[in-house]
Amino acid sequence: MTHMSLDLTQDAVSLTRDLVDIESVSGNEAAIADAIEAALGGLDHLTVQRFGHTLVARTDLGRDERVVIAGHIDTVPLNDNLPAKLTDTDLHGLGACDMKGGVAVALRTAATVPAPNRDVTYVFYECEEVEAERNGLFLLSQSHPELLQADFAILMEPSDAVVEAGCQGTMRVDVITRGERAHSARSWMGVNAIHGAAEVLARLNAYEPRRPVIDGLEYHEGLNAVFISGGVAGNVLPDECRVSINYRFAPDRTEEQALAHMREVFDGFDIEVSDSAPAAMPGLSVPAAAAFVEAVGGTANPKFGWTDVARFSVLGVPAVNFGPGDPHLAHKQEEFVPLDHIRSVEEQLRTWLGAAS
Amino acid sequence: MTHMSLDLTQDAVSLTRDLVDIESVSGNEAAIADAIEAALGGLDHLTVQRFGHTLVARTDLGRDERVVIAGHIDTVPLNDNLPAKLTDTDLHGLGACDMKGGVAVALRTAATVPAPNRDVTYVFYECEEVEAERNGLFLLSQSHPELLQADFAILMEPSDAVVEAGCQGTMRVDVITRGERAHSARSWMGVNAIHGAAEVLARLNAYEPRRPVIDGLEYHEGLNAVFISGGVAGNVLPDECRVSINYRFAPDRTEEQALAHMREVFDGFDIEVSDSAPAAMPGLSVPAAAAFVEAVGGTANPKFGWTDVARFSVLGVPAVNFGPGDPHLAHKQEEFVPLDHIRSVEEQLRTWLGAAS
Repeated sequence: MTHMSLDLTQDAVSLTRDLVDIESVSGNEAAIADAIEAALGGLDHLTVQRFGHTLVARTDLGRDERVVIAGHIDTVPLNDNLPAKLTDTDLHGLGACDMKGGVAVALRTAATVPAPNRDVTYVFYECEEVEAERNGLFLLSQSHPELLQADFAILMEPSDAVVEAGCQGTMRVDVITRGERAHSARSWMGVNAIHGAAEVLARLNAYEPRRPVIDGLEYHEGLNAVFISGGVAGNVLPDECRVSINYRFAPDRTEEQALAHMREVFDGFDIEVSDSAPAAMPGLSVPAAAAFVEAVGGTANPKFGWTDVARFSVLGVPAVNFGPGDPHLAHKQEEFVPLDHIRSVEEQLRTWLGAAS
Repeated sequence: MTHMSLDLTQDAVSLTRDLVDIESVSGNEAAIADAIEAALGGLDHLTVQRFGHTLVARTDLGRDERVVIAGHIDTVPLNDNLPAKLTDTDLHGLGACDMKGGVAVALRTAATVPAPNRDVTYVFYECEEVEAERNGLFLLSQSHPELLQADFAILMEPSDAVVEAGCQGTMRVDVITRGERAHSARSWMGVNAIHGAAEVLARLNAYEPRRPVIDGLEYHEGLNAVFISGGVAGNVLPDECRVSINYRFAPDRTEEQALAHMREVFDGFDIEVSDSAPAAMPGLSVPAAAAFVEAVGGTANPKFGWTDVARFSVLGVPAVNFGPGDPHLAHKQEEFVPLDHIRSVEEQLRTWLGAAS
């Protein structure tokens, strides 16, 4: 097997381009993981371990503090957006934004900052874009939680090169209405379950989402039907209608509290939970986190979408998103990353780790 | 090929049983059509023509009046309900109710009433239980409309052995709501099309169906959602929701009027028509129809469901449903036909045709 080789000493923009050009749709990360393993494996200051297509590289300098710097190496499916294309200001291509720009910064930092002022655990993991059971960070948190122990974690997801703290939780519940089948030519013999869903939709329309302020950040909840389905045949009154509802909840609520709230909002209806993931508190009052925010300019925004920072939160590790790229471009055919994001994120990270710039 | 043979001179109950035992799910009517063709073909008083698996058998006695007596020979799919089972009071089995009891009565009448007081056109047709384009009566109405010309038509669909006059029309429209996609974590960036369907369902719930009286019969309209669908992904605000609505309309409305009414009820929404079939006026004021109702006991009920009587109505031929069996049992696994229905329908038909009983 021919390995692609990565030069981790080249500038981060060129490295991002090389990473984008190694296709790595979820489930197909062998080549990129091989290339990263080979590149990091030759460095004396790092201990490298591999789990599936997830790589962990640690410094062990006996520093007072340890931080995790993590990024996923997979992408959503190809969409006629490879190879990478470089302009004067941006790098275009699958994964450029989500999140090979961040991975490039982390890889270059790992290779070229041999003696950081904090010990660092770098994690490059597989299968973030697919179901949670395959997520490399999740698997590692189950099999080797000790490897993720740290005072603080930085997830290099696109965040417009600004710290995004915490993340909102997400829960999906099916709210189910029931009726009684009848031939639609004699509809008075039955009860129409789709008509019964009017009340569910009316409650959604009347719902006022909370906007709580936590650690100085204003979150913004949301309650939305994402699917609706019902129907038996073109001439039959349906006996069931299912409204699948996505609740995005701020980090001051646990999953249990979120579910209790759903039961309250949809009181009188059957509810089935189909998916749930906890929020992560911004944790900006933790010294390591506060120091990081201070070091990168003092600004932090709330993170609305769910990200793997919540996995660190579950392990008791405060974590933030901080990476190049506009998160709104993630998963889009036309995704790109601004070159100045890559450069500024790298510079701030190096400075925080005490490297000469 | 071995033909099954049918004895049309045996009693109608035994003949129904023989017909049920010739499996004839829509699209698979060759065997039953062959058997009917062979049985009718040997009779001097009938002219028999075949079109696909549809048979037309006519007397040509030069009577003042001509009537069509029609029934479909196909059934819905098998459901572990063959062969036929006879009890003291009922015959059970696939198609017993819908509508081999009626076909048996028509076949026995065709064979054993050689000189009716009205000329008769018997039609035994294929594919009634599937899409309209394959329906044998529809195909015949297109290719040989002259064969269906008559003063009156009797469709031997199950009607509890009582005349059911006219039929309600049926129309299916999709009412579509539109929105704008957004990530559900930032739902204020989009417009949720499923939430927009609340108004459609509210109008359905508020709708008061008409119950017009026509020719002395009270019809009963209905407006029901039969399908609803919408959704893109579990984390995306949907940009379209589609509510499929079935309108059953009384025979005083044309299809055009029914559609205009839908546009009025769902004013402000996009509408797409997916299916439409006209109602049939009861036509009981037409002398031939009135005479028939009088002859079979003077009672007629309104028909709520759509049946092929509407095809006669389109040709200008008044038509009624009159057959053995409870229409509510049609298409059910446990369908059966009461033996006294078969006997009473046969006796009334024979009397009306002037045969000695």
